[in-house]
Amino acid sequence: MNVYGEHIAKLIEEFSRLPGIGAKSAGRLAFHVLNMPEERAESLANAIISAKQNVKYCSICQNLTDSDPCAICESVKRDSSIIMVVEDPRNMAAYEKTKEFKGLYHILHGAISPMNGIGPNDIRIKELISRLNDDVLEVILATNPNVEGEATAMYISKLIKPLNVKVTRIAHGVPVGGDLEYIDEVTLSRALSGRQEM
Amino acid sequence: MNVYGEHIAKLIEEFSRLPGIGAKSAGRLAFHVLNMPEERAESLANAIISAKQNVKYCSICQNLTDSDPCAICESVKRDSSIIMVVEDPRNMAAYEKTKEFKGLYHILHGAISPMNGIGPNDIRIKELISRLNDDVLEVILATNPNVEGEATAMYISKLIKPLNVKVTRIAHGVPVGGDLEYIDEVTLSRALSGRQEM
Repeated sequence: MNVYGEHIAKLIEEFSRLPGIGAKSAGRLAFHVLNMPEERAESLANAIISAKQNVKYCSICQNLTDSDPCAICESVKRDSSIIMVVEDPRNMAAYEKTKEFKGLYHILHGAISPMNGIGPNDIRIKELISRLNDDVLEVILATNPNVEGEATAMYISKLIKPLNVKVTRIAHGVPVGGDLEYIDEVTLSRALSGRQEM
Repeated sequence: MNVYGEHIAKLIEEFSRLPGIGAKSAGRLAFHVLNMPEERAESLANAIISAKQNVKYCSICQNLTDSDPCAICESVKRDSSIIMVVEDPRNMAAYEKTKEFKGLYHILHGAISPMNGIGPNDIRIKELISRLNDDVLEVILATNPNVEGEATAMYISKLIKPLNVKVTRIAHGVPVGGDLEYIDEVTLSRALSGRQEM
């Protein structure tokens, strides 16, 4: 990238380190920033710095938050007897958007993945176990429906069951609005075995 | 995005304003930044600020550069009798990578596009005209091969021809390595009409 000057090359390099941003996209982003009004570029840089400085983990649910405990853990409107376990904050946000779930969350920040060297102690499982007092009646495992997510759900359910807490797993099945023709066989057979009376 | 705190929401919003970054990607980028070591996040923010503060336009070719005149305009190794006109710095960089062109560049920073309200005075055409002294023997129009780029090339060629400077346009044709089957008809017919003896 020597055709650009040092500052532009550095900016492109920084952008290209972000996930999903290749060399071409990084160039496009860099020149977009250079063409921005100065205050817009500062606003972007400040958002990065201030998010980094102000965002911390909620000591209860482990979510990334401005305040500890986070707004959800602190809310009196939430049902503290149910904890939904998810892999990361975006998964929590996805469930929040449904407005269906009124319990609390627990964010693992990852899933067990021996292939990537991530064991049970590398994600926030012990923080979940320490939350399980007499008030907690159910733990819903909402880890992702892939190999790592399933393994993580299995591991956690084995840990929790002896503690006399109900453990459930979100249902597998055909996505709403999907066309059966395009759905993989594993999902189809899970949808069949999980069928419910109408 | 109220499920996240204020700082995270702000960061996601800033990322989603960048070109080609949708809401989901912005979320992924924001959480990536939050999981970065502090010094990496600072390095990203600083690259934005310092590029914005230090990069200026070259007073000759209008390229974005750390130093004015830019390294190319200042180089004694470049042939100052040929100027290649491109729409933006990335197009210049693409030609620099070929290592084939030894002349100078002129960056228009856009193309004429009446649909988007961009006229000849909104891009750096007059700066190009003012560069055309007796030393300049040829102007190569390397604007993009789309409607706006063609219109811009046409407009500039009409301005320059009366000044007794040779004006050329980069060749249209089939891309090297392409498969004729997948190339559009306009390109195919341009490749035919531009055929050269072997």
